[in-house]
Amino acid sequence: MFKKLLVEFIGTFFLILTVGCTVFSNGSGVIPAIAIGFILMAMVYAGGHVSGGHYNPAVSLACAIRGALPWRDILPYWIAQLLGGALAGLLVTYLVVVQPAEMQTQFNTTALVICEILFTFALCYVVLHTATARNNEGNSFYGLAIGATVTAGAFATAGTCFGAFNPAVALGLMTMGTALCKTVCITALANLIGGAFAGFVYKLTSND
Amino acid sequence: MFKKLLVEFIGTFFLILTVGCTVFSNGSGVIPAIAIGFILMAMVYAGGHVSGGHYNPAVSLACAIRGALPWRDILPYWIAQLLGGALAGLLVTYLVVVQPAEMQTQFNTTALVICEILFTFALCYVVLHTATARNNEGNSFYGLAIGATVTAGAFATAGTCFGAFNPAVALGLMTMGTALCKTVCITALANLIGGAFAGFVYKLTSND
Amino acid sequence: MFKKLLVEFIGTFFLILTVGCTVFSNGSGVIPAIAIGFILMAMVYAGGHVSGGHYNPAVSLACAIRGALPWRDILPYWIAQLLGGALAGLLVTYLVVVQPAEMQTQFNTTALVICEILFTFALCYVVLHTATARNNEGNSFYGLAIGATVTAGAFATAGTCFGAFNPAVALGLMTMGTALCKTVCITALANLIGGAFAGFVYKLTSND
Amino acid sequence: MFKKLLVEFIGTFFLILTVGCTVFSNGSGVIPAIAIGFILMAMVYAGGHVSGGHYNPAVSLACAIRGALPWRDILPYWIAQLLGGALAGLLVTYLVVVQPAEMQTQFNTTALVICEILFTFALCYVVLHTATARNNEGNSFYGLAIGATVTAGAFATAGTCFGAFNPAVALGLMTMGTALCKTVCITALANLIGGAFAGFVYKLTSND
Repeated sequence: MFKKLLVEFIGTFFLILTVGCTVFSNGSGVIPAIAIGFILMAMVYAGGHVSGGHYNPAVSLACAIRGALPWRDILPYWIAQLLGGALAGLLVTYLVVVQPAEMQTQFNTTALVICEILFTFALCYVVLHTATARNNEGNSFYGLAIGATVTAGAFATAGTCFGAFNPAVALGLMTMGTALCKTVCITALANLIGGAFAGFVYKLTSND
Repeated sequence: MFKKLLVEFIGTFFLILTVGCTVFSNGSGVIPAIAIGFILMAMVYAGGHVSGGHYNPAVSLACAIRGALPWRDILPYWIAQLLGGALAGLLVTYLVVVQPAEMQTQFNTTALVICEILFTFALCYVVLHTATARNNEGNSFYGLAIGATVTAGAFATAGTCFGAFNPAVALGLMTMGTALCKTVCITALANLIGGAFAGFVYKLTSND
Repeated sequence: MFKKLLVEFIGTFFLILTVGCTVFSNGSGVIPAIAIGFILMAMVYAGGHVSGGHYNPAVSLACAIRGALPWRDILPYWIAQLLGGALAGLLVTYLVVVQPAEMQTQFNTTALVICEILFTFALCYVVLHTATARNNEGNSFYGLAIGATVTAGAFATAGTCFGAFNPAVALGLMTMGTALCKTVCITALANLIGGAFAGFVYKLTSND
Repeated sequence: MFKKLLVEFIGTFFLILTVGCTVFSNGSGVIPAIAIGFILMAMVYAGGHVSGGHYNPAVSLACAIRGALPWRDILPYWIAQLLGGALAGLLVTYLVVVQPAEMQTQFNTTALVICEILFTFALCYVVLHTATARNNEGNSFYGLAIGATVTAGAFATAGTCFGAFNPAVALGLMTMGTALCKTVCITALANLIGGAFAGFVYKLTSND
């Protein structure tokens, strides 16, 4: 269990470190979405065989509903992930001093909630089908599919929401000083709803 | 069968949602083609083991001609795909209010038809050879090859056609209010011709 | 054999079609190199199990030297590849009317030759090690490695040479009216030298 | 052994050649990070089955600590890698004459050291888990994960450090005349510390 939590901490730490460093330097251009999808993919491939490579409380929730993670493991997973995200956010404020003026932090709440639910659903649906479905055992594509979903979602929702799809990312944005507590809570709740929804839809769409 | 249609609906819905959100926000830059190829790749990997992961009436037609989809399944597949595309198009108009002024919607009809036929052919040819050929069974690259073809085709045909290569995408562009009905019908017809052509060429080029 | 030549023709045709359409529209920005690497990857994955997926006379030469292509097949392969490249080049001039003013077609000959030799060597070295080495049999990454080499090489040599790494691409650039016959011949010769060199170096570096 | 060293030399040579050519032409835009990650991925896939495909003294150190490289091989590996990097750097100065004015070569030393340690750690952690872990034997994703880590790290650390994550890259930047000897030595030392740290953390997080 210690191994799993350490892997979840490391992966979430580097995910949010990359989020913060690229968003601070580049705003909402082409670079952050690519960098974030790539580091997530790399960390999923590196840690998948140890902890499942969630790095995301919404993914852990979806896995628990689907039966790929014991319910008693979910709280320690969440703590490791949120700790990694919060620490990475603090480090970003030290490494990258200037926050870009043009960065958007105000969104229409309804559109934000819809987008965060939809793409967190997409992310967890892809995770469950590529990394936990019996038909796909032993494949080499799960990390690529998971990272690509986050990149595509970040591009699609730029201007509508933070494109977190992950409560640990939302928390990291708060410790960086980029997002208000209220927006972070709404985002994190939307992410968990999307993840739970994916857990149920997986059961409807799977052959397991 | 219900599982397969739900998977086709979900995949096509997210494909056209990503098309609409990125095209509305970014016009014809580098982002839409990357985002569209990535979400298609992810959805193909997620749903391939359930429904084949077509998300495209032209691909379903090519698979039917090649013998990888029973002919009696093609109509339900088409309905699920078109429904997903139309609904996603409507949602885009709610989520992303402003349509960019510089977006091109007028094309030379002959060049449009040639480009849509050629790259839909390429897409379906790649699908049949990577996802249905016996020599390639058990590979992990089919989704990557399929998504990359759409990205490359979208880049290559920017300015010449919508780069739909998919009647469900064309329909979604109409429900978003981006494309006229007439252009959509011509595009969809060109896509089906390209798909059918790929089905026949597969038989000439395959070792099965 | 007819199957193999048809596959080589189709793959080279779409490779050069993508080269022409993206270079004409985008000059030397980020789009052409990505699009070209992606379509090459897709065509390698689609046709690799039939013809080897060369689409490049320099690759066919390297494969013949390494013993992965019978010497008697090399001439028909070259003809199919050059035919596909030349036809695609002509089609580009019809589909994309305007050639960008800023496109560079004059290079320092020594630097051009060095760059075309070096990156054609890299391409053929990657092809031989990922697609023909016994230790790597059954892998799913060969197309990705091959496409990525061309993308990286095109980015690295922008401004120094055409970044063809392929006599069929060089020929296509001539039929598009982009390159002079003399530059094309020098490029094609450099490509063949790079390919032959890779064939010999493969024997020094392989465990087969 | 000669085969292994030749493969390490070739791979490191093309890695640093791509670094130099793209950084000189494009400064710190989107192109260098993509091109560098892609050529590293291709070279890892090409040479992995012969030498392990390190191309990086910090990776070789991490592999030695983890037990995937005999300690007596580490010096010859380092020499081959540094030779490839230094030579490629010299060639870049011949091929690409002009150095961009806007290129950043002065960094805050503390932030530079932190970033180089962190992302070299991430790189070596990904290498050990994807390319040497028993649970992941026979996968096709190791090169993709490794290349993607470098791309993401280069994007994340732009403006904070050179984004070398590799003493051979740091040396190549010196032979190109881009980096001062002192900065190169600090960078290389930080890289080795990150690699050694990854070797120890691997033992804590692995199931082997």
